Amino acid sequence: MKTLHLDLAERSYPIYIGAGLLGQAELLTRHIAGTKVAIVTNETVAPLYLAKLRAHLVSLQPIEVVLPDGEQYKSLEVLNRIFDALLSARCDRRTTVIALGGGVVGDMAGFAAACYQRGVPFIQVPTTLLAQVDSSVGGKTGVNHPLGKNMIGAFYQPRAVIIDTDTLKTLSDRELSAGLSEVIKYGLIRDPEFFSWLETNLDKLLKRDTEALAFAIHRSCRNKAEVVAADERESGVRATLNLGHSFGHAIETGMGYGSWLHGEAVAAGMLMAADLSRRLGWLSAADVARIEKLIQRARLPLQAPAKLSPARFLELMAVDKKVLDGRLRLVLLKRLGEAVVTDDYPRAELEATLASRREAA
Amino acid sequence: MKTLHLDLAERSYPIYIGAGLLGQAELLTRHIAGTKVAIVTNETVAPLYLAKLRAHLVSLQPIEVVLPDGEQYKSLEVLNRIFDALLSARCDRRTTVIALGGGVVGDMAGFAAACYQRGVPFIQVPTTLLAQVDSSVGGKTGVNHPLGKNMIGAFYQPRAVIIDTDTLKTLSDRELSAGLSEVIKYGLIRDPEFFSWLETNLDKLLKRDTEALAFAIHRSCRNKAEVVAADERESGVRATLNLGHSFGHAIETGMGYGSWLHGEAVAAGMLMAADLSRRLGWLSAADVARIEKLIQRARLPLQAPAKLSPARFLELMAVDKKVLDGRLRLVLLKRLGEAVVTDDYPRAELEATLASRREAA
Repeated sequence: MKTLHLDLAERSYPIYIGAGLLGQAELLTRHIAGTKVAIVTNETVAPLYLAKLRAHLVSLQPIEVVLPDGEQYKSLEVLNRIFDALLSARCDRRTTVIALGGGVVGDMAGFAAACYQRGVPFIQVPTTLLAQVDSSVGGKTGVNHPLGKNMIGAFYQPRAVIIDTDTLKTLSDRELSAGLSEVIKYGLIRDPEFFSWLETNLDKLLKRDTEALAFAIHRSCRNKAEVVAADERESGVRATLNLGHSFGHAIETGMGYGSWLHGEAVAAGMLMAADLSRRLGWLSAADVARIEKLIQRARLPLQAPAKLSPARFLELMAVDKKVLDGRLRLVLLKRLGEAVVTDDYPRAELEATLASRREAA
Repeated sequence: MKTLHLDLAERSYPIYIGAGLLGQAELLTRHIAGTKVAIVTNETVAPLYLAKLRAHLVSLQPIEVVLPDGEQYKSLEVLNRIFDALLSARCDRRTTVIALGGGVVGDMAGFAAACYQRGVPFIQVPTTLLAQVDSSVGGKTGVNHPLGKNMIGAFYQPRAVIIDTDTLKTLSDRELSAGLSEVIKYGLIRDPEFFSWLETNLDKLLKRDTEALAFAIHRSCRNKAEVVAADERESGVRATLNLGHSFGHAIETGMGYGSWLHGEAVAAGMLMAADLSRRLGWLSAADVARIEKLIQRARLPLQAPAKLSPARFLELMAVDKKVLDGRLRLVLLKRLGEAVVTDDYPRAELEATLASRREAA
């Protein structure tokens, strides 16, 4: 097991990474103070791992909340089911909420913990690659709104993140690829050495080589922890973690939540950002080709869906959280391994990217 | 105009108190940084004061969200209408949300501001006595759940509180009395001198004497600001501000939100807390009589409703936010002017209070 620390003064917490961690009761129980626990999970993950987690907590008689699986259920309405369960079981302010699942479960359980009685303790146990390398770390929680992704939420840090890499054995190929999208992101925005490592080792990751996965998860979490420690509430550098996300969120919202996986939309979005960066003279065509090659090898989409016209795309992007005073700031690449956040790009170049990086109808 | 400061390090803010403050544009605009503003109000307040506020903000083309009036609308569902409006108008992260109204409007607008894009700036413009002396100050925001009051929310501080005492001229007698309940509370928990002042000056307050109201509001806000500055997130002394609230919330939830006003339920609840404090030997019968007299003169209820049996009362109180590990902590009075939070009371005495402080069926 390796342990990273996310350094946020009194809100600091450990990130445990290793094989078989779900079997280690003490890793979990050391972070539970009260006498009540609620496990939030989904229909897919529950049959696989809920019993294992419950076994460590029998004396606390954990409440279990099993949500439907999919981005389309990340809504205020489904969130309310968590509150129903917590209140029906008379959970108090010292109840610890445990998120067992992927990004949707973690985002919703975390937001429920942030709001229940104005805040109760919370632990992340991510079981998808995407959640392990990205969404479980850093305290972004929330739900979607029909008009925009992740528009309702809170910054709310967990007490611990427990990453059992064995859970990746049950992950679908599609979900594995979606997680690789965020892994590749760290290489693009701040870790060119890791990008080269990924070019060499991607096939191992796709074959679920244990050592390669453990390395990639640790390296990703280290990148994430460094950025979040420097800018917890995204007033600066943290925004670079959203490379491809303004485009990606527009795809997710526009296609209907759950149609594209988040990681898939981010992959196409990162290529759109790379394309625009090339148009601005920052990336070479060769750089873009390198990125495209890696994303293709990861079995991820390379273009935006034909269904979304450039006009519709712009409309969807207008509610992005990076819009300020009417200007959409975008995360672009100054070079391979260095991201910037800027609203200083010609609108025509953005439109050219939207038109060219789109599947043929 | 008088100005108090709530001292919370980087989250500190001013509380302006005076007549005609709604007419002073600059008080408001100095706290608005971005180019978008959303005013949240309700059907009762909008015809009275919305135009006045809007006049200061014309250049910003404020979004207006008019909610139905009443505690029964303080729900997750109605909260979503605020998000709908903010997103439809493409409000960004620098949008300032302004709450114009009573406690329900302030709690909901504040919670919406806390969650929208994970937090946008927010200003309180309270127009009821209860909101001016209590709910607009201190950053408690949230909504009710059918199973419990204020169970879903956030600690989220406003940038400023603007209290125009002229707005009390349009307040109903019933709402004025409900506000006096929280005013009396400060005397009971920490300000015995103020309690005596209230005994002398209550009739002036009921007659809406401008000077007496201004004094009572200022003194109440000063008490509130001192307590919140000492304990923002209610890990200690702040809980004493909930004198009567564990009983009161049970009445509000049990009778159906909107049936009793919050201040009415708190008045009956404070007398229940006083009764239990007497049973524990802390208050004399004469003290309780003094409290009862003042609450009666304020035209507030003296007893819990007949409809709620002691058994149902206990059931409702079991989900109170002050329950820890199965024990309900209560705010009680050591003496007139000094509150304590304790779970050390005989259950039989609590039951005796519930049985005796109840209207005849």
